[in-house]
Amino acid sequence: MSSGASSTGDAIAALLRRFTPLEVLNEDPSSKTAWLLGRIDGEDGASASAVVTVERPPFSLGGAGPGLFHGIALGEGEQNDIYSWATGFANSAALGPDLRVSVIYPATEKHISKHRRQQRRWVCETPQLYAQIVQPYVDAQPAARLRWVENILDKRVEAERIVYEDPDRETGFVILPDLKWDTADAASMYLVAIVHRRGIRSLRDLTAAHLPLLKNIRAKAAIAAQRYNVPADALRLYIHYQPSYYHLHVHITNVALESRGMSVDRAHLLDTVIANIEDIAPDYYQRATLSYVLGADSELWSRWTAHSG
Amino acid sequence: MSSGASSTGDAIAALLRRFTPLEVLNEDPSSKTAWLLGRIDGEDGASASAVVTVERPPFSLGGAGPGLFHGIALGEGEQNDIYSWATGFANSAALGPDLRVSVIYPATEKHISKHRRQQRRWVCETPQLYAQIVQPYVDAQPAARLRWVENILDKRVEAERIVYEDPDRETGFVILPDLKWDTADAASMYLVAIVHRRGIRSLRDLTAAHLPLLKNIRAKAAIAAQRYNVPADALRLYIHYQPSYYHLHVHITNVALESRGMSVDRAHLLDTVIANIEDIAPDYYQRATLSYVLGADSELWSRWTAHSG
Repeated sequence: MSSGASSTGDAIAALLRRFTPLEVLNEDPSSKTAWLLGRIDGEDGASASAVVTVERPPFSLGGAGPGLFHGIALGEGEQNDIYSWATGFANSAALGPDLRVSVIYPATEKHISKHRRQQRRWVCETPQLYAQIVQPYVDAQPAARLRWVENILDKRVEAERIVYEDPDRETGFVILPDLKWDTADAASMYLVAIVHRRGIRSLRDLTAAHLPLLKNIRAKAAIAAQRYNVPADALRLYIHYQPSYYHLHVHITNVALESRGMSVDRAHLLDTVIANIEDIAPDYYQRATLSYVLGADSELWSRWTAHSG
Repeated sequence: MSSGASSTGDAIAALLRRFTPLEVLNEDPSSKTAWLLGRIDGEDGASASAVVTVERPPFSLGGAGPGLFHGIALGEGEQNDIYSWATGFANSAALGPDLRVSVIYPATEKHISKHRRQQRRWVCETPQLYAQIVQPYVDAQPAARLRWVENILDKRVEAERIVYEDPDRETGFVILPDLKWDTADAASMYLVAIVHRRGIRSLRDLTAAHLPLLKNIRAKAAIAAQRYNVPADALRLYIHYQPSYYHLHVHITNVALESRGMSVDRAHLLDTVIANIEDIAPDYYQRATLSYVLGADSELWSRWTAHSG
């Protein structure tokens, strides 16, 4: 439905000039992105909801020359010895475009709630609270939620996507590219190892009995990554807690990749997990207090509030 | 050396108009930040190196009204059913400032190499390797590198920036905004607690003796954050290992903030640190294997290679 680059840009700009913002649905200050709900008046006088995402694009500095900051206007600033800093306006195209917009129009209630910020809540999970709140939740997961994992392990689907396999029932696993990775750019390499052994639901289940499995993943991930020319010392291996599904899997990324999933809010380095079990205590993960963030709309968070309420 | 907000901004803008870019030292597309090396001609005709960090600030949408996109000009774009997107220029102050700059001028070779993109290397630091490689490096740090910390703790500089203090010599600390945070946007709140007690160089030094200090920081950070209307359950507290300076400090951010510093590559949650010492082993951090990433140009990495080579 695209109809030539600039006229499409002009049409979107014309639409946005009729946009009246009503609410900031969400903001991500680190990626410099915000999500706005508003209304756009149609040509017939009626109006409909629109969700507009505004994002600052990365700088385009390829042609940066002497006049780069010619039009700069700075407001508040500070100077301390050789260091100074200030915020203002570039007033120049030399740094590249300053805005990327996406528009959903007309937007439904479903679009709106999908883009509205979920409050995030910290949870500090002691072993006692794991037993009282989290383990019952994990036990209650329907088996059907892991059917896609079983399908992969049994090669019923995605068999052609498997890039490495150790078929051992106790210490083996398959490795395949994460769906978030396009497999083209080695700098953003993102693989996932899914273990063959059933019944290891999360970090909480890991003991000294699993050291051969964990060390095997660490060793063989390096072989899988060779396929993408990513050397062993450039690999970041980690486990999420809470995971998004309760069958043990290990994330394998290029250390050059920065992603939300490697946040200390969720990620536990495989090296640390192995060392905690081997050098500190074989039952470390049954005794540990694990802190993490939950979305306020998640089922697990509702169990936490029901417990404390 | 600050001399009134707007005239300082004007002075920095005047400096930047004389900036000639020579090289893009590094770029981070996810945070929309770039580091430029260039030269600035002095008034005497001589010129010196400058490192300029340009960053897109988060949007300021507090006063967003009907004319928000009035001046928008979009280039390439796409439309597909109810979805459309395009990149261009806002041509408006309604979205807030579009540029934050930091300048180091004159900059030394050390400043330049610190900001140049480095290859990243994983290190798996056992207690033995800490004793052999890292502890001698930490011991060799010149005292002068901590002079700015002493200046803050003794109120010789930045006293007006301190937002909270517990003056106790053993369990006290000061809290001030991190220089990366503009103090305006609560969603990106970033504070640092610097302990009064001298001689705690890093995570490796922490034992059960420090639990009162660590718990005091956890409790009082919530009071400091109230000033910015950030509730206690929205705080992420963590310690870096390796730290950027060897005097114990704790990072305090809004959980809504996503930043490179909260990566599992470096960050250790204060809750986890306290639980490891209290519930697992009082000497946990003397026995732990700690994994982290070093820049290939860093002095510490050169010590690792010298040790293994």
